Amino acid sequence: MAKRIAGPEIERLIQLLAKLPGLGPRSARRAALHLVKKKEALLVPLARAMDEAVEKVGVCSVCGNVDTVDPCTVCRDERRDPHVLVVVEDVSDLWALERASAISAKYHVLGGVLSPLDGVGPSDLNIASLVERCRTEDIREVILAVNATVEGQTTAHYVTDQLGHLADEGRVITVTRLAHGVPVGGELDYLDDGTLSAAMRARTKF
Amino acid sequence: MAKRIAGPEIERLIQLLAKLPGLGPRSARRAALHLVKKKEALLVPLARAMDEAVEKVGVCSVCGNVDTVDPCTVCRDERRDPHVLVVVEDVSDLWALERASAISAKYHVLGGVLSPLDGVGPSDLNIASLVERCRTEDIREVILAVNATVEGQTTAHYVTDQLGHLADEGRVITVTRLAHGVPVGGELDYLDDGTLSAAMRARTKF
Repeated sequence: MAKRIAGPEIERLIQLLAKLPGLGPRSARRAALHLVKKKEALLVPLARAMDEAVEKVGVCSVCGNVDTVDPCTVCRDERRDPHVLVVVEDVSDLWALERASAISAKYHVLGGVLSPLDGVGPSDLNIASLVERCRTEDIREVILAVNATVEGQTTAHYVTDQLGHLADEGRVITVTRLAHGVPVGGELDYLDDGTLSAAMRARTKF
Repeated sequence: MAKRIAGPEIERLIQLLAKLPGLGPRSARRAALHLVKKKEALLVPLARAMDEAVEKVGVCSVCGNVDTVDPCTVCRDERRDPHVLVVVEDVSDLWALERASAISAKYHVLGGVLSPLDGVGPSDLNIASLVERCRTEDIREVILAVNATVEGQTTAHYVTDQLGHLADEGRVITVTRLAHGVPVGGELDYLDDGTLSAAMRARTKF
């Protein structure tokens, strides 16, 4: 903006809002204006919610989820199957699986994928803590719910390899992965060849 | 969400973020996750910026703009032409005109448009204060920069009418409106008939 039309506090608010995913500079401006116009109804509660989040939010020391308690709500939930561990790349994947009520199990967040080109090695991910959990907790199945990307699959292979060493200690853990196939509601015409071939190979009785 | 996967503080943050324009429930969840994952880099500064906005932001008592000072930055700016007043419906219009550096003048924000069906009458808008400013300040031109909608034009007519009464007190104020025409970069093929006709009537020498 050539000329200053508002105090620096509002400009700063716009700049920070623009860093949120899904908000560009223009929509951040709209959001900031909306906030300052609805001060009592929205800005005040949102500011308070953020202060509270700043104070309480942290990373779960057990699984790597983010929550306001440690261990997190998921780790504390005793109704979940303690023998099944779902390994995800990111907290957003944990949330997505929970939103879908896909399974009632415990989780482990790797915090990324192996990517030598980006300098991400095994020690940068929560792999050692995963192996440690499999050693000390009574885990019988590890579900590798990583993305179906090259990095995701490389990471899955590495994790499987690491868990295989536990067999030497007499711990046999079944390692599974998510099924490939046609997305529910998806149209064949729009799917890539790899997905179609995978869906065909894994066809089931109707 | 069927099961609670995070503390109520995070859920509350998501709900409030979802009220921002441009963010739906899904993108609010992504934004909240982004915030709590980047706690020090983003959540903490944003929370601080919001606290500061809560403390300082208010409506300018002169023109109706929102700012952290009163009178606002625009009203205080002495480089602006004090004889020209741009009347806009909303603060966002003021910001848009300033972003475009369309004019260097003072502003007056009506805070809406006349809309009898929605129960918005003249007393609900900052029209009396506009007339008062035209009476006491040395205003020579009022530019009605309202939207080219039916309500906007109705409001423009009403405001013009009210300003006309000042002639009885010996104050003659020129009232102008924004030009209609082809948007810069616009294609004729996509324009409505009204705009095309207006652009043709107001054609200028090349």
